[in-house]
Amino acid sequence: MNARAESPLPTVSVNALAAPLVEALAAQADALRIAVRRSAGGARLIDAGIEAVGGIEAGRRIAEICMGGLGRVALVTGGAHPDWPFELLVHGAQPVLACLGSQYAGWSLSHGEGKDKYFAMGSGPARALAAREALFAELGYRDRAASACLVLETDRVPPDALLERVAAQCEVPLERLTVILTPTRSLAGVTQIAARVLEVALHKAHYLGFDLKRVTDGLGSAPLPPPAPDTLAAMGRTNDAILFGGRVHLYVTGAAAQAEALAQKLPSSASKDYGAPFGEVFRAAGGDFYKIDPLLFAPAQVAVTALEDGRTFRAGRLAPELLERSFA
Amino acid sequence: MNARAESPLPTVSVNALAAPLVEALAAQADALRIAVRRSAGGARLIDAGIEAVGGIEAGRRIAEICMGGLGRVALVTGGAHPDWPFELLVHGAQPVLACLGSQYAGWSLSHGEGKDKYFAMGSGPARALAAREALFAELGYRDRAASACLVLETDRVPPDALLERVAAQCEVPLERLTVILTPTRSLAGVTQIAARVLEVALHKAHYLGFDLKRVTDGLGSAPLPPPAPDTLAAMGRTNDAILFGGRVHLYVTGAAAQAEALAQKLPSSASKDYGAPFGEVFRAAGGDFYKIDPLLFAPAQVAVTALEDGRTFRAGRLAPELLERSFA
Amino acid sequence: MNARAESPLPTVSVNALAAPLVEALAAQADALRIAVRRSAGGARLIDAGIEAVGGIEAGRRIAEICMGGLGRVALVTGGAHPDWPFELLVHGAQPVLACLGSQYAGWSLSHGEGKDKYFAMGSGPARALAAREALFAELGYRDRAASACLVLETDRVPPDALLERVAAQCEVPLERLTVILTPTRSLAGVTQIAARVLEVALHKAHYLGFDLKRVTDGLGSAPLPPPAPDTLAAMGRTNDAILFGGRVHLYVTGAAAQAEALAQKLPSSASKDYGAPFGEVFRAAGGDFYKIDPLLFAPAQVAVTALEDGRTFRAGRLAPELLERSFA
Repeated sequence: MNARAESPLPTVSVNALAAPLVEALAAQADALRIAVRRSAGGARLIDAGIEAVGGIEAGRRIAEICMGGLGRVALVTGGAHPDWPFELLVHGAQPVLACLGSQYAGWSLSHGEGKDKYFAMGSGPARALAAREALFAELGYRDRAASACLVLETDRVPPDALLERVAAQCEVPLERLTVILTPTRSLAGVTQIAARVLEVALHKAHYLGFDLKRVTDGLGSAPLPPPAPDTLAAMGRTNDAILFGGRVHLYVTGAAAQAEALAQKLPSSASKDYGAPFGEVFRAAGGDFYKIDPLLFAPAQVAVTALEDGRTFRAGRLAPELLERSFA
Repeated sequence: MNARAESPLPTVSVNALAAPLVEALAAQADALRIAVRRSAGGARLIDAGIEAVGGIEAGRRIAEICMGGLGRVALVTGGAHPDWPFELLVHGAQPVLACLGSQYAGWSLSHGEGKDKYFAMGSGPARALAAREALFAELGYRDRAASACLVLETDRVPPDALLERVAAQCEVPLERLTVILTPTRSLAGVTQIAARVLEVALHKAHYLGFDLKRVTDGLGSAPLPPPAPDTLAAMGRTNDAILFGGRVHLYVTGAAAQAEALAQKLPSSASKDYGAPFGEVFRAAGGDFYKIDPLLFAPAQVAVTALEDGRTFRAGRLAPELLERSFA
Repeated sequence: MNARAESPLPTVSVNALAAPLVEALAAQADALRIAVRRSAGGARLIDAGIEAVGGIEAGRRIAEICMGGLGRVALVTGGAHPDWPFELLVHGAQPVLACLGSQYAGWSLSHGEGKDKYFAMGSGPARALAAREALFAELGYRDRAASACLVLETDRVPPDALLERVAAQCEVPLERLTVILTPTRSLAGVTQIAARVLEVALHKAHYLGFDLKRVTDGLGSAPLPPPAPDTLAAMGRTNDAILFGGRVHLYVTGAAAQAEALAQKLPSSASKDYGAPFGEVFRAAGGDFYKIDPLLFAPAQVAVTALEDGRTFRAGRLAPELLERSFA
């Protein structure tokens, strides 16, 4: 007996909402300098920066796909960083569902062993079909849709066996699975990763134990980080764009004291590991992510409005000198 | 004999231009967390913040509907208010028609008596079908369209008799009338009200006797105000977003001296009631709107370009300390 | 024998990508206050500011058409110029193709003699069909499409013989040629010209001998200049918006030293003619463009990221006092 067949269709399907954006991405592949091909088994692979050139606009669109069609990612001139004027602004309908139910890179995918082992973190709406992460039970959300789209931060094409497993866990035929590949060091990669500024704030709020059902709305912005040819350096810059240049505003229900406590704990500067570009922190931790304070991963400046009280609590600060050390 | 049937169709129909935006809003109701239902008589009611959650993106779209499909409302990071970085930017084709012919909340609607009396100000393209306001004769505009959309700043569902009257005055069947309900204290409400920054400037220009036919174009921006649970406090913040944080640029024909005079009189600071958050002004006036100087309702900073002369006249100033007192 | 018939179709057609934007412009002519008519021979003429009013939104859309459907032009509040807060932000897929292959006003068009001589510079995707400029060989690009769109910075309707020649050189029937007319002194004109900030940077990079194939991506912004009733004054302001208020970020491959050298030479301030509003420079040159240092035509502030090295090189500076002298 198939329990899932009996569950009701979700009222909002992040895969169905993202599907027209995925089709538009593929249809405009030449203009966007991305490459579309089918895997041996029939999955659609979109290379947005491995062999293909890709670019910022490809990354911007991939970011909107990552948010399950619920988000908008726009380029703006932010005003906060005169030396790095171009920013990404992120908003949309249902930020918790868009960011944590879809955009968060929470699906750990690996295949094989030893030096050929493939590993990548999966993000995007396909996560909500497979629902392999405990987070989905907390969100009370599971998608059902006729097609799936997964985004991988990787510079290698995933093996066929992994694609088959993803399709099976998403309960879609392999030919209805689209996997978008964005290396961290590519222009599309840094764009779509910096566009996670709001997601990073929501993830930290969740980590701090704040009830996600109380987050009604949110907005975020972060400067567009310049790519670096080295993956670790590029990753450092995408983190620093958020840690030192990110701004987020959350709108929450519930007690004002809890909104205030959230605001105080939320910025990156509330972490004991705050104070240097991420690359330096990572090296100091011996290259072991798990030795870095999880509270570091957060935007620089936050505001939390307590909707039932009316007050807004703010904490953190932009850190232009640290941004400069990271980006220049 | 029906005089109206003989009048020519307007070349631009704000209701026809808004109709696809209204349909998209309704079609994406679940994603936008708004509720669509039919009234007893068959009018379509869209709750964007009474019982439904709504949100900033719902408000942004409602603002574009309010502008009769002629306007664009975008979220940007403005640079002017480091502590309130997220702004709404408003522009579009034909700002006078979009803002005064459609967006302005000028249609006074009431039904019943005593404590059950229903009252709300109507805005949006339906106004231009009913054309109950003297303003439409001055604009020389009356719409004709197969459907109507009205936006009400209210936290109550309007009575059926009122819906029937609105449809009749718009000369559309009741089932072709859509009424969008946005409480002032909701996220959608504060968003769509702050998006009136350009309309407020145009309305004051009109109040000052400036010939609207001479306003060729315009742009506006205002910080996104945080909602407040109390309607009066929320209304105060939406006003203060414009009075202390709003920026408008108008482009006008005619004599440069008149453009300069308009610029001097246009900012909020040209009012004798300027100097405190709107809530304080309202209380000082004994809660009577009609005792407040109408010249107060205006953006903080204005520029007026005299197109036939080439000079731009500027007046007013942003008031971050007053914005902070209102928003924090 | 027709050599062209044997050449492969380009993978990206700037005319095909622009075509739906051109159709939308024409379909919304009344709302945008532009006038669409057919020439005696059947070409479609779109007046966006000669007799028609036009406006900023018309200009914004024309700018996106000029970029061959590959670019996005958005209004933002930039933060850099408190007295001129409204900016244009320009980005898109394939900036070299969008800006130099389509947007650049490089097609010199004239007809007749003496005082009735018609002259205008042509820009937009039609250039890539005719490919009359040496630049196209360097770009390695020539478009083939079923329709053509040309944008002319002019305040006169072009003669029929010129339209026929353009259609013939584009190899499209006259009725498939659309020509958009935007006077420099119109709102649509100044908008679409200031939106050339990224194109100006790419054109100067090309002039400096930088290999365009090495420019992978780019972003630009410039304040929206107020129009002036005099064409030369209006032209001066559109130049000054870029020279004193323009910001561009390029992303290039190849040696970091070359990226650094490009950044040093790229800003307007690297020109010997820098230091006064363009109108003054033009008068000092006796009204002869060819006596002005070509290195002057460039954005105020530039960043060049060397993608294979990771460093970003910056040079130039915003010049608010010169912008003010030009715009006020």
